[in-house]
Amino acid sequence: MKSILPSSRISRRAMLSTLAALAALPPLLLFTAARAETDPLPSWADGPAKQAIVELVEATTDRASPKFVPPESRIATFDQDGTTWVSHPMYTQVMYCLERVPVVVAKKPELKNVEPFKTVLSGNREASAKLSMNDLERLLAVTLSGMTVDEFRAEVTKWIASAKHPRWDRLYTELTYQPMLEVMRYLRANGFKTYIVTGGGQDFVRVYSERVYGIPPEQVVGTAGGVKYGYDKSGIPILTMEPKLLLNDNNAGKPEGIHLMIGARPIIAFGNSIGDRQMLEYTKAGGGARAALLVLHDDADREYAYGPAQGLPDTKVGTFTQTLYDEAKKDGWIIISMKNDWKRIFAFE
Amino acid sequence: MKSILPSSRISRRAMLSTLAALAALPPLLLFTAARAETDPLPSWADGPAKQAIVELVEATTDRASPKFVPPESRIATFDQDGTTWVSHPMYTQVMYCLERVPVVVAKKPELKNVEPFKTVLSGNREASAKLSMNDLERLLAVTLSGMTVDEFRAEVTKWIASAKHPRWDRLYTELTYQPMLEVMRYLRANGFKTYIVTGGGQDFVRVYSERVYGIPPEQVVGTAGGVKYGYDKSGIPILTMEPKLLLNDNNAGKPEGIHLMIGARPIIAFGNSIGDRQMLEYTKAGGGARAALLVLHDDADREYAYGPAQGLPDTKVGTFTQTLYDEAKKDGWIIISMKNDWKRIFAFE
Repeated sequence: MKSILPSSRISRRAMLSTLAALAALPPLLLFTAARAETDPLPSWADGPAKQAIVELVEATTDRASPKFVPPESRIATFDQDGTTWVSHPMYTQVMYCLERVPVVVAKKPELKNVEPFKTVLSGNREASAKLSMNDLERLLAVTLSGMTVDEFRAEVTKWIASAKHPRWDRLYTELTYQPMLEVMRYLRANGFKTYIVTGGGQDFVRVYSERVYGIPPEQVVGTAGGVKYGYDKSGIPILTMEPKLLLNDNNAGKPEGIHLMIGARPIIAFGNSIGDRQMLEYTKAGGGARAALLVLHDDADREYAYGPAQGLPDTKVGTFTQTLYDEAKKDGWIIISMKNDWKRIFAFE
Repeated sequence: MKSILPSSRISRRAMLSTLAALAALPPLLLFTAARAETDPLPSWADGPAKQAIVELVEATTDRASPKFVPPESRIATFDQDGTTWVSHPMYTQVMYCLERVPVVVAKKPELKNVEPFKTVLSGNREASAKLSMNDLERLLAVTLSGMTVDEFRAEVTKWIASAKHPRWDRLYTELTYQPMLEVMRYLRANGFKTYIVTGGGQDFVRVYSERVYGIPPEQVVGTAGGVKYGYDKSGIPILTMEPKLLLNDNNAGKPEGIHLMIGARPIIAFGNSIGDRQMLEYTKAGGGARAALLVLHDDADREYAYGPAQGLPDTKVGTFTQTLYDEAKKDGWIIISMKNDWKRIFAFE
C-alpha cells in the first residue's frame, strides 16, 4: 500500500488545483465544456446511423424545434434477440427450454419417447438444431407452463446466472451489444422511456431486464401466455402459467402489443428482422420526428453474418430479407451495419 | 399597483428575516418542521384508514425499517369506478356507450329494431337502467369496436370534455374523489408508481388518466379488446378495435392483468367492490408490508349509499357484499367509510 502513496498525493493535489481552476470558470461555460467532452455513444463509428440517432434526440428534446416531443410521449422500443443481444445460433430462451426438457420429462415420463422430446433428450445437438418451428413451439408450450409465476422467475433467475454461450463461453447477459446499451442510456438521459418489445417471452426477459438493460419489468412487452389466478393447498393466492397464448409479440403482434401495453406510438424503434417490420412501419407512420433502425448482422468475425439480404447467408433465426432491406431504404429507415457502425460490440472486448 | 407596494415591502422584509432565522437552524430540524406543517392527506379525517396509509408509506420508505421496499417495487394500484370517481347510478363508460347508440345505429340501420338497441333508442331512461349485464355487454361490444384506435381516442376526448353527470350537472372527471387524488400524489411523492387497475375499458380510461389522475396511459390496466394491425386505403398502418375480449380486468382478471401489464405484485391496493377482491387478496399475500383498502359507500347525502354490506341498499353497480366485508375484517384489510373517513369528497365542495 505504501508504494502508491506518493502518486496518490500528487493526484490529490492535481485534482484540487484543477477543481480550483474550474471553480473560477463561469458555470455555463463549465457545463458546455463538460458536455462536449463526453460522447454519449462512444462505441458508435461516425456515420449515418449514429447521426440519425443524435439528430432525432436533439430535434425532439429542443423546445424551440418544430419537432419537439413532450417527455411523456418520448417512447423508444427495442426488439431484443439480434437487436440488443446475440441470438445465434439459437434464441437464448429456446436454449433455456431445451435445457429444461430433462426436468419436464422427469415429471411427465410419458413424453420420453415422444418427439420432439426424444430428440432433445438424445443429446444430439445437430438433430436438435434441425427441429422445426412447430417442434420448438411445442417444447416452449410444455416447458413454459404448469408452474407458478414465482417458480418460473426463480428458475430463470438461476439459469440466466450460470448458462453460457458456446462460442464465447460467457453468460448470455454478457453478450448484450454495448452500442445498444449506450443508446438506451442516451435516450433515457434525454427523457425517453425505453421499452423492450420482444418476440421472446415477456416473463423470461423481465427476470433480468432491469439489471441488464436498466429497463424495469413493466417496460418489457413480449410474447405472453395466459396466467390463471387460484389458490394453493393452504389457500394462498397463486398465479399459474397456462399453455395459452395471449399475445404473440411478433410481426403485426408488435404494434398490437405496443398498443395494449404502452398505449402510445414509439418515436424511435430498433429491430433486426422481418418480425420487426410492422413495429417500424407503425413507428414511422406517426407524425413529426420518428426514426426506425434495423441492425444488419454483417460481421462474421466479431459476431455473425446473416440475411439473406445483401447476399448474406440465409437463416431462420432472425431472418433479414432483401424485401425488408428494400422497404427500409425506400421508407427512410436506417440500416445499422454491425461491421461498419459499431466500433465495439461487447463490453468485455 | 401603487397601493400594494408598502405591504409588499413589509412582506419582503419579513420573509428575509424569516429566511435568515431558518438558515440558523440545523438542517434536520428544518426538514422536520417543514414536513410537520403540511398534511399530505388534508381531506382525510384522522382514523384507521388515514393511519394505515401513512404507516405503510413510512415503513416502506424508511431504509432503517425491516419493511423497507426499494423504489422499483413500490407499486400502488387503484380500481377506478367507485374507488377514484363516482360510478352511480351507472358506470361512466356505459353512459358513453348508451349515448353512442344513435351514431352506431345510423351506420347500421339493421340494429334499429333489435334489442337492446331498440330500448336505448326509445329514450326511456328507466327501461335502459333495467337492461341486463348481457345486454350492456352487447352494447359495449358494438359501440367499442370497428373503428381505429385513433378515431376512438378522438371520440372519447370530445365526449369526456362535455358529458355531465345528471345529479351534479358536472363533468364526470370533476367527480373524482379528492381524498384519493391526495393519496395518489402522496404515494408518488414517496417513490410509488401509481396504476389504475379497472374493470372499465383500458383505452377509454387512458384518454384522460394523465390529466385527471396524473397517471400516464401505460400505467392504466383495464379490460382490453383485441386490436388488429392493418393498412388503410392509402397504405398507412392503422390499428382497428375488434369485438374480441383480450383481458377481462375484473375479479381474477385483476391479478392476472397486473401480472401481464406490470409484472410485479402491488404493495398497496384500493378497491370498492367484489370485482376487487382477488386484487386485494393477491396484494396482501405478498411478504412484508402490504395494505388493502376498500371504499364503503355509506354516504347517501354527499354521494351514494350501497352495499349490501352492513345493511346498505343492494346494487348491481359496484356490489360490496357482507361476505367481502367479513373477509376484509378477517384478513386485516381497511374499510374506508366515505361518511367518516372523508372530510371532503370532491374538489369543488
